Amino acid sequence: MPRQITAFSNPLVKQVRGLREKKNRRAEGLFMAEGLRILTEALEAGHVPRILFFGAGTRHPLLDALIAATEGAGGEAIETNADILHKLSGKENPQVVLGVYEAFPTDLEALDRSSADLWIVAQALRDPGNLGTILRTGDAVGAGGLILVDDCVDPFSVEAVRASMGALFTQRIAAAGWESFVRWLRSGEGELIGTSLHTDQDYQQPRYRKPAFILVGNEAQGLPEAYERECDTLVKIPMLGKADSLNAAVATAVTAYEVINQWRRG
Amino acid sequence: MPRQITAFSNPLVKQVRGLREKKNRRAEGLFMAEGLRILTEALEAGHVPRILFFGAGTRHPLLDALIAATEGAGGEAIETNADILHKLSGKENPQVVLGVYEAFPTDLEALDRSSADLWIVAQALRDPGNLGTILRTGDAVGAGGLILVDDCVDPFSVEAVRASMGALFTQRIAAAGWESFVRWLRSGEGELIGTSLHTDQDYQQPRYRKPAFILVGNEAQGLPEAYERECDTLVKIPMLGKADSLNAAVATAVTAYEVINQWRRG
Repeated sequence: MPRQITAFSNPLVKQVRGLREKKNRRAEGLFMAEGLRILTEALEAGHVPRILFFGAGTRHPLLDALIAATEGAGGEAIETNADILHKLSGKENPQVVLGVYEAFPTDLEALDRSSADLWIVAQALRDPGNLGTILRTGDAVGAGGLILVDDCVDPFSVEAVRASMGALFTQRIAAAGWESFVRWLRSGEGELIGTSLHTDQDYQQPRYRKPAFILVGNEAQGLPEAYERECDTLVKIPMLGKADSLNAAVATAVTAYEVINQWRRG
Repeated sequence: MPRQITAFSNPLVKQVRGLREKKNRRAEGLFMAEGLRILTEALEAGHVPRILFFGAGTRHPLLDALIAATEGAGGEAIETNADILHKLSGKENPQVVLGVYEAFPTDLEALDRSSADLWIVAQALRDPGNLGTILRTGDAVGAGGLILVDDCVDPFSVEAVRASMGALFTQRIAAAGWESFVRWLRSGEGELIGTSLHTDQDYQQPRYRKPAFILVGNEAQGLPEAYERECDTLVKIPMLGKADSLNAAVATAVTAYEVINQWRRG
């Protein structure tokens, strides 16, 4: 049976609210996700909340399923009010459900590259919205997951989880330094494709092979030169205007759709 | 000669800081943009700051050019410090230059459709980051500009300007209700292309004609049914994973690159 919490001073409210900060997520190994649809996708992918908050008076079969799964796995379902949901999520119009989840391991060695033909690799990505959007795109193009290289923004941040629209739970996530990543990459098959301003090769020119690893660089700096040299294929997306680059998540998506469009044509 | 401001209590600091709110931008017809590179792009596109703030001790030929242009046009150049730049922009690590500009007129009738082969139309777009990213993509694909239909987020918001990376100054921007937009669109040539979940037509299937108008809907709801019916061409971007949609700015970019890729092939 769900218990009720309606007091701001409740220690659990304070603890969960603290998960908006990275140091608390790291210390507790937990993060939060919001929204009935996203939590349901998480459940379908095998992720059960440790704690489930839901707004009093909310009735939905999907919520019933979430409550049952949470309690069945030894977690806690908590009925609360909109003010507390707002306090937890920081959103003006909070979703009526919010789940607290255990963070996943992000060990690169555990990644099974044979499970997908396409992988996305982001280097020193700084913006949580970009990270989440790249995860969402990864799901759409049938990627296996996202490999975070060097010092990237936390994939378990509230903004990244929100922008991923549930893809955080369906995409594999790994993190590694560049050297470790290259060692892992070269221990098996894979074409490393970098998007760059320092090449004349149009991104529609190469015939992409499987498995493909699309490498996208930091929002402001792009890829370091040494990283570009490691790429098997460097490509340039045409820029017809005044600017010389696209948003990082947009560049990733444009490249990834070219790769799968080639494969769709067979 | 630039004057100096170092006091938080200066009324100009208060006024400019107020431009982070839409009601103040509307009341004063002004908005702000940050960064030497973006302000320089603005200048090249003919936009001179009404007021230019720059950090004391900053030396750069591009800054000299901005100061000269600002003062030459009767505006004011103001030397200030990092604390005040932070207060103005709201950013932890503020850029060393910040400009205050007159908002542009956004009259649809003033748009010259013959000036470009591609236009982007956004309907009820809510997220300023998406709006700015769509402007940035519009520049990259050689679009003429962005038409904002129905109640969209303010293109002059700090977040939208920032995400546009200067494209706010190089893309034309118009705003109109749906009825007015359709009347304007049908008064001349143009193919209205909607991305939708309610069609089986793959986005690579049609042969796109010029001028093309790519219509993207609200982040959460997509396009209203009546709006989809008005489209000449409805297309679907393949979704290979669990999710059924892409981020709005990503969907716009993937569609726009398909259109210009067809035209590049001739």
